[in-house]
Amino acid sequence: MNQLTNLSQDDLSAQHEQDAKDLTRILPASKKVYIQGSRTDIRVPMREIELTDTPTGLGGEQNPPVMVYDTSGVYTDPAVQIDLNKGLPNVREHWIEERNDTEILDTLSSAFGQERLKDIRTADIRFAHISKPRRAKKGKNVTQMHYAKQGIITPEMEYIAIRENQLQREGVDMRQHTGQNFGARNLVEITPEFVRQEVAEGRAIIPANINHPEIEPMIIGRNFLVKINANIGNSALGSSIDEEVAKMTWATRWGADTIMDLSTGKNIHETREWIIRNSPVPIGTVPIYQALEKVNGVAEDLTWEIFKDTLIEQAEQGVDYFTIHAGVLLRYVPLTANRLTGIVSRGGSIMAQWCLAHHEENFLYTHFDEICEIMKAYDVSFSLGDGLRPGCIQDANDEAQFSELRTLGELTHRAWEHDVQVMIEGPGHVPMHMIKENMDLQLEVCKEAPFYTLGPLTTDIAPGYDHITSAIGAAMIGWYGTAMLCYVTPKEHLGLPNKKDVKDGIITYKIAAHAADLAKGHPGAQARDNALSKARFEFRWEDQFNLSLDPDTARSMHDETMPKEAHKSAHFCSMCGPKFCSMKITQNVRDYAQNQQNSKLQDDSESEIDQGLKAMKSAYHEHGQKLYHKV
Amino acid sequence: MNQLTNLSQDDLSAQHEQDAKDLTRILPASKKVYIQGSRTDIRVPMREIELTDTPTGLGGEQNPPVMVYDTSGVYTDPAVQIDLNKGLPNVREHWIEERNDTEILDTLSSAFGQERLKDIRTADIRFAHISKPRRAKKGKNVTQMHYAKQGIITPEMEYIAIRENQLQREGVDMRQHTGQNFGARNLVEITPEFVRQEVAEGRAIIPANINHPEIEPMIIGRNFLVKINANIGNSALGSSIDEEVAKMTWATRWGADTIMDLSTGKNIHETREWIIRNSPVPIGTVPIYQALEKVNGVAEDLTWEIFKDTLIEQAEQGVDYFTIHAGVLLRYVPLTANRLTGIVSRGGSIMAQWCLAHHEENFLYTHFDEICEIMKAYDVSFSLGDGLRPGCIQDANDEAQFSELRTLGELTHRAWEHDVQVMIEGPGHVPMHMIKENMDLQLEVCKEAPFYTLGPLTTDIAPGYDHITSAIGAAMIGWYGTAMLCYVTPKEHLGLPNKKDVKDGIITYKIAAHAADLAKGHPGAQARDNALSKARFEFRWEDQFNLSLDPDTARSMHDETMPKEAHKSAHFCSMCGPKFCSMKITQNVRDYAQNQQNSKLQDDSESEIDQGLKAMKSAYHEHGQKLYHKV
Repeated sequence: MNQLTNLSQDDLSAQHEQDAKDLTRILPASKKVYIQGSRTDIRVPMREIELTDTPTGLGGEQNPPVMVYDTSGVYTDPAVQIDLNKGLPNVREHWIEERNDTEILDTLSSAFGQERLKDIRTADIRFAHISKPRRAKKGKNVTQMHYAKQGIITPEMEYIAIRENQLQREGVDMRQHTGQNFGARNLVEITPEFVRQEVAEGRAIIPANINHPEIEPMIIGRNFLVKINANIGNSALGSSIDEEVAKMTWATRWGADTIMDLSTGKNIHETREWIIRNSPVPIGTVPIYQALEKVNGVAEDLTWEIFKDTLIEQAEQGVDYFTIHAGVLLRYVPLTANRLTGIVSRGGSIMAQWCLAHHEENFLYTHFDEICEIMKAYDVSFSLGDGLRPGCIQDANDEAQFSELRTLGELTHRAWEHDVQVMIEGPGHVPMHMIKENMDLQLEVCKEAPFYTLGPLTTDIAPGYDHITSAIGAAMIGWYGTAMLCYVTPKEHLGLPNKKDVKDGIITYKIAAHAADLAKGHPGAQARDNALSKARFEFRWEDQFNLSLDPDTARSMHDETMPKEAHKSAHFCSMCGPKFCSMKITQNVRDYAQNQQNSKLQDDSESEIDQGLKAMKSAYHEHGQKLYHKV
Repeated sequence: MNQLTNLSQDDLSAQHEQDAKDLTRILPASKKVYIQGSRTDIRVPMREIELTDTPTGLGGEQNPPVMVYDTSGVYTDPAVQIDLNKGLPNVREHWIEERNDTEILDTLSSAFGQERLKDIRTADIRFAHISKPRRAKKGKNVTQMHYAKQGIITPEMEYIAIRENQLQREGVDMRQHTGQNFGARNLVEITPEFVRQEVAEGRAIIPANINHPEIEPMIIGRNFLVKINANIGNSALGSSIDEEVAKMTWATRWGADTIMDLSTGKNIHETREWIIRNSPVPIGTVPIYQALEKVNGVAEDLTWEIFKDTLIEQAEQGVDYFTIHAGVLLRYVPLTANRLTGIVSRGGSIMAQWCLAHHEENFLYTHFDEICEIMKAYDVSFSLGDGLRPGCIQDANDEAQFSELRTLGELTHRAWEHDVQVMIEGPGHVPMHMIKENMDLQLEVCKEAPFYTLGPLTTDIAPGYDHITSAIGAAMIGWYGTAMLCYVTPKEHLGLPNKKDVKDGIITYKIAAHAADLAKGHPGAQARDNALSKARFEFRWEDQFNLSLDPDTARSMHDETMPKEAHKSAHFCSMCGPKFCSMKITQNVRDYAQNQQNSKLQDDSESEIDQGLKAMKSAYHEHGQKLYHKV
């Protein structure tokens, strides 16, 4: 990883060093722990956040550490030496090998892949340790869905069961609201068998290409924690391989469950190799973007053969899911003519242009079974693209959009016949009151295959803040049943996100996903809220920061007003000042109520209240007019 | 306005100059226009955003200017010379005078006000042009609700009707979705008579103290545009009068419909005077904060007499609405004892402490009718405080909270008997699935008196991002029927907001309020979305920026990737690059469909599709294989 930037070698080294620090620094009070499964090579990473004790005046009890789901990979494991040039350790290789249904090929199967390997112009930007590709043995189907349908619980499934349970420690406040989950099945304990069932029945997918053994397995389905995806990728106008790998690591550090590499610029192939080899999370792509590059950007020149070679090329690199716009049927294209903003999906517009130019049906649709054959030889999951999603509020939920969704439902069933895993992409721009209709139709026509939505954005009038316009819609659709939320950054509609934008997008979407988990009543979801709120109530400032989604920002905002270390244990905050603090007063009220067992006050009867008042008055004076006492 | 900062006189002057520029700069392509009502002194300000023409290649039509609601006051009117030392021009003075039901007092009625006037230590920070206070003549009731009930349409009501209609120009795309408004009455045209009815029946309030004639009248009610409030105010720890006045102006510049001055530090009285005299929007306060200052922060020492004097003091300065925590009844306080975070409302905890200390009922409740007598002599509106709102997800919708809400319903009726205007404050921290229950109960027990909610925050785990955790809840509860949303800044729970935080909070809440208007199907709400999306589709970058909630941020984000002026009219953006742009392709598809009138393609019948395909293929070749033609 060297050129492609405008920096001098010295500047570059300095930047790399800073990046490396940023990307591997362990969050405060956190440590990486691994939970072992039924075998020693199932080691599920989690982040354990240590808490301080409650102050003595408030009871002095110990607060058990809180475990949180950890997507950051070994970058945050101090025991692992990171070398981007070598890639990550292989978590799954042994599991894949022992299934004995794959073979290692001597060379890449795709013509384009071969070509790139021989291209001396890209030699110096090529990842140095490319493994030989793996493919299913002839006649074998290596998808997790295939195993699940056979009743096989794979190590991946067991890993996921442990991971989803977020091992909660004794003493953690597990109280939470019942939630409303619209018919989802959010179990108190996720078992490996439950994971298997969900995958077998298509309600969840495990994106896990056999050529991406580096991933820490994860699941996408509405009966599991809501996940988020971050898009990265360069374009013709900017950004280098270095930057994209750094963005990927940065995004997973803050909580991205999957990454989509949407590169459209030069060296797509090489960029992708670097990203996959260094990514602990599944990688998705939109293969039509690269296919279009291969025909110099002329959509009409696309062919099934070029596309097929691209699928194989990417499958052998290890892409875990493909966005395929097979639902953009020729007859749906004119339905977009009277839209305010037409077709805004890049993939959708490419296919629409191709269809109209050739006056033929979308080749992704006509070759769908052949696509499935490729997918199942590598276990690439479908992300059926919504090429006709609305690009503005006015175009929401129109005939074009819903016609395509129904076709995606049909394609879901066809993929399932091949035991290929499927999720469905969703909009877009939708006003709040029309969001649920999307979810309901998707659940119906796609038979609960996971929904994976972009936002939706709930208004068009805030470019620069579309992480927020969309987080509103994302939280709601996540509550209604969407399994994964595709993040939107502040730069949406305006430009390519930088590191800050990526983080803003990620944190915003972690909020949306978590708000959805809470509203669904997903078991254990509220434990972190409870722990943080208890810390807040007890003025344990450091614990409040450390339990938050972004400890760095919480701490620095606090320090703007109250920088002194002593303030971190102050029993007040800058909003109210030392004399006058509602939290402090409440502690008093609470002690009082507990000590006095003043049940009579809770009675609505006026005469009893009067009696109570008198009794309290004596008690107050007996205790030296001190209001609040500890036992 | 001079001392109270640590800056040297020169630095201060420089900062003032920069502030003044920031606060009075007119947004790009915008001009202030006034719509005249039935009389020449009804002049309703709006902001007109000029648009460029559609590029010739896309049709070349003129795009009419878009009118938007404007809260910024005369600060953005180049015809008005701003002098903070003199305060704003009086919009309403003549209307108040001609009603002939008020009298100008020789001197302030409150003892504290008198005292401050005589205090030489505050002479140099005092506003120089304090007017004599106005009060209702004996036996008169000067509330807008009182007039409304008499069938009188005041100039304020006519002003509001014009303002709410947001005069839409011919040619503006008024298409929009029907919306789901849960029984609200969102009329296509707001008439002065409708405003009167809504105020008479308590479904809306016009906060408009007779001592705040500077305001540009506005209305809060669920059958009108959803409004937002911004909190400002200093605390014991920081912030000066200068800063608070600047924050107020800054907040209204970006869209705050009302401002609450929550100051708790020194010189509250003087700070408030400066703010009111310079505020074009209604000002709300929580009088108990100042009352507490008067007893040196010892809640037990509060008395009805001190509180009453504070109400009169503030009413004569011109505060437009008072948050009064009259629903924190003694018997509800112990209901909070088992909460995770007890009582988090400052006002609520002060009153709870007072009640317990004295073993007496809340004096705000027992003196409620006397409070109403004061309110109606100045037309101060109630904002009935939710002192027992939940401070964390776990405490949402509990018995304490809903008991208080029912009491607020009772007090609403009592206020209405006095013809005093009322709105009701709402939570707080509530997971998404429990938000609607709040709205439904409020509508029921408060008989559609306007709901005014803080957020609600939909999770506790993101300090530093609580503008976002709460915007999700705010958008939803706004959709369900909340009339005004109290903003939350990124600094919530962490510190006092600075200028950037205030703006972030405002824009975020403008998004939430607008998303709510769209979901309700409020007439005309979608016009700005349509205009912006059309501009986006046509690559009119400048129009896209200028129509957005924050043109400065949209423009600067765009310019990070594509700084050149030429790019502002480029038919592509940085996400896709010049060759490969979905918007561009879509334009082609659209032209194609329009020109070919290819209705046959829209038919599902396979044989007709085949025929269509053939016809298209010939047409394609006839037209020199050029795909997309303009008529």
